[in-house]
Amino acid sequence: MYLEKLSVLNFKNHSESRLNFNSNINCFVGGNGSGKTNLLDAIHYLSFTKSFFIKQDSMNVLYDQDFMSIEGIFEKDHKTELVQCAFKTGVKKVVKRNKKKYDKLAEHIGLFPLVMVSPTDSELLLSGSDVRRKYMDSVISQFDKEYLNTLISYNKLILQRNALLKSSDSNTANLSSLSLYDEQLAPLAHIIFEKRQLFLNQLAPIFLNYYKAISNTGEQVTIQYDSQLSEKNFLDLCIQNSEKDRLVKFTSVGVHKDDLIFQLNGHPVKRVGSQGQQKTYLLALKLAQFDFMQEALGYKPMLLLDDVFDKLDDNRVEHLMKLVDKHHFGQIFVTDTHPERSKQIFNKINADYKLFHIKNGAIEKEE
Amino acid sequence: MYLEKLSVLNFKNHSESRLNFNSNINCFVGGNGSGKTNLLDAIHYLSFTKSFFIKQDSMNVLYDQDFMSIEGIFEKDHKTELVQCAFKTGVKKVVKRNKKKYDKLAEHIGLFPLVMVSPTDSELLLSGSDVRRKYMDSVISQFDKEYLNTLISYNKLILQRNALLKSSDSNTANLSSLSLYDEQLAPLAHIIFEKRQLFLNQLAPIFLNYYKAISNTGEQVTIQYDSQLSEKNFLDLCIQNSEKDRLVKFTSVGVHKDDLIFQLNGHPVKRVGSQGQQKTYLLALKLAQFDFMQEALGYKPMLLLDDVFDKLDDNRVEHLMKLVDKHHFGQIFVTDTHPERSKQIFNKINADYKLFHIKNGAIEKEE
Repeated sequence: MYLEKLSVLNFKNHSESRLNFNSNINCFVGGNGSGKTNLLDAIHYLSFTKSFFIKQDSMNVLYDQDFMSIEGIFEKDHKTELVQCAFKTGVKKVVKRNKKKYDKLAEHIGLFPLVMVSPTDSELLLSGSDVRRKYMDSVISQFDKEYLNTLISYNKLILQRNALLKSSDSNTANLSSLSLYDEQLAPLAHIIFEKRQLFLNQLAPIFLNYYKAISNTGEQVTIQYDSQLSEKNFLDLCIQNSEKDRLVKFTSVGVHKDDLIFQLNGHPVKRVGSQGQQKTYLLALKLAQFDFMQEALGYKPMLLLDDVFDKLDDNRVEHLMKLVDKHHFGQIFVTDTHPERSKQIFNKINADYKLFHIKNGAIEKEE
Repeated sequence: MYLEKLSVLNFKNHSESRLNFNSNINCFVGGNGSGKTNLLDAIHYLSFTKSFFIKQDSMNVLYDQDFMSIEGIFEKDHKTELVQCAFKTGVKKVVKRNKKKYDKLAEHIGLFPLVMVSPTDSELLLSGSDVRRKYMDSVISQFDKEYLNTLISYNKLILQRNALLKSSDSNTANLSSLSLYDEQLAPLAHIIFEKRQLFLNQLAPIFLNYYKAISNTGEQVTIQYDSQLSEKNFLDLCIQNSEKDRLVKFTSVGVHKDDLIFQLNGHPVKRVGSQGQQKTYLLALKLAQFDFMQEALGYKPMLLLDDVFDKLDDNRVEHLMKLVDKHHFGQIFVTDTHPERSKQIFNKINADYKLFHIKNGAIEKEE
C-alpha cells in the first residue's frame, strides 16, 4: 500500500497544494514555518480522519477561510482507493472512501495505516503513566477488537466502582457491592494484562535490535511492562487493598495503574539519557511498533518521520538510513530543514527519492 | 567576565575533564550521549551552585562514585576568581569563592551570571502559567532584592488567606478577616505588578528585534504581560470576587494569576508555530533576557547555547551567527552533534573559536 497523490485545500497554512508521490522516499524540505509538518499531518488526517496535532477541526482551517478538504489516492492490493475528508465550519465532518460516505468514522481507521515519528513523542518519556497506557492501548486496539471492547467495559466498571467509593462512608454495607464489582472486573483485568504482556513480549526484542542498529554503541536499553497483576491476581489485590480503597475513595489497584518502564544502562532514560539518546530510544520504539503493525496487517504501513535527523549525530543518522536502505520499510515521508543534508543522505545510500521544496504553504519545486 | 578554566571530577558522565577556554566562542562537539550538555551543566553549577537539569545532587555524581567536584577560574574586573563546588554523599554541599566557604549559597548567585538556552525552554510555551511566572520572577529577582522580598511576603499572605478560606464556612465573620489580608496584600500586589510591567516593557522591544533579526521574515510576533491588575486595582478585585473566593475556597484574583501571552501572527505560538518557529521565539526571548541582564549588570553574562542549531533552518542559523559575530555577546558556549557544521558556521563568520571533541565523558581532542 502507498499514497500516490495528495491534494489539500485550506488545510493549516496550505491554501492549495497537489503532490504526486514516489512509492519509496518522499522528503519535504523548506525553512521554518513553511508547512512541511502540515503535509505529514494531512497524510495523518487521511489515515485517522483527524490531525495528529490539533483535535479541533475549526483550528485546522486556513486563516480567513471556513472550509478545508484533504484528498488522497492510494494504491492498495493493486486497486486504486480514493479517500476524501472535508470540514466546513458549523457542519459535521464528512469522510468518503471511493465516493461513499462513512456513517461512523471509526470504520475507516486501520484501512490506510501509518506510524508517525514526531518530536512530540518525547511526551512518552516525560509525562505520566496515562500517556504510556494510552500508547499501548491505541496500538493494540487497532488490530484487536476484543481488547478494545474489554478495555471499554473495564474502564466503565472502574468509574462505577469509584463512584460507589466516593458516595459512601466507610461502612460495611459497601463491602458486598464492592466485591460484586471486583468479580466482574477480574476476568477483564486479566485479559487486558495478558494482551499487554504479549504485546510487550513481541515489541521488546525488536525494539532492542533497532536501538542497537541505530546507536551502534554498547548502550544497554530495556523496555518493561510494569503491572501489579504480574505479582498477584486481581481479586487478591482487591481484597488486600479494600481498606485503603475505602479510605482514599478510589480504586487503587488494577490494570489502570499499569506503566511502561524505559531504561538506559539501568536507569530511567528520562533522567540519564541525553537529548540524542532519548530521541534514539523513541525512534527505536516507533520502528518496533512499525514491525508489530506489519506483522498484524500483513503489509507495510506508511512511515512518517518528522524532524528525525535533528538531535541525532552523524553515526546514528547513517545507521538509521542503512535500515531504510534495506527496503525494510515501505513508503516513507520525511521532513528536513536542510535540503543539502537530505540529498547527501539519500544519495549516499543510493535511495529512490523525491524532494519537495516547500515555501509559505506551497510546493515551490519538485526534484 | 569570562571562564578561563574548568575542571570536573565525577560529575555526571565525566570522571575527570580539564578544559582551557577561549574568551569568545567555545564549542563542544561529539556524538549522542558523549557528555556535551553535561559540560554546560557544570558551568551552570558554578554560577547557580546547582545543576540546570537535576536538583538532587546525589544524582549528579558519576555512577559508582560517592563524591564530585567542579572548579572554575574566572576573569572578572581584571582579577582572577576561583569558584569550587563539592558534594559528597551524606555530607552538606560546599561552595567556596577564592578558598572562602559560603555560609549561604544564595550569596553566590548573581556573581558569575549566565543565560542558558536549552531545548527544555519549550516548557515556557507548553506548560501552565506558573512556569512563565516563575521565569519572570527568577529574572527580575536576580537584580532586584525588593522585588524578591515583596514576592515572598505576598505569597506567604496568599497562603494564609487561602488557609482561612479553606477552614471556614461561608459565614460573615470571615469577611472582616479577609479584608484585613486584602489591605496588607494590596500594596505588595501593586509593587509586583508594576515591576513585572516594567520588565516586560523593557524586554518586549528587544525581543521583537531579535526575532526579526533571526527569522528575517514577515512573521509578526508579540509578547504580552497579562494581569488582572491592568484593568482594576487589587482591592476592587478582592471586593468583586469575595463571594466567589469563599465559595471556591481560594484566592482567585491577584498577581499569582498573572501570565505571559506569546503570539505569532495573532495566534498562540504554541498552537500555530512550527517546531522551528517555536525554537526561534524562545531563542529571541532568551537573547532579550541577555540584554536585560547586561543592562542591569553593566557587563555581559556568559551565554550557553545547548543544541541551538537543531530545528533552525540555514537562514536562521546564519542570521543568529551574524548576531554573534557583531561581538554583541561575550563568552559563548555551544554544543553540536555535527563538528563539520559548527566549523563551517564559525569559519564563515570568521569567528575566534575553540572546538572540544567529547567522547564518553572525556575530552578527546581540542582544536
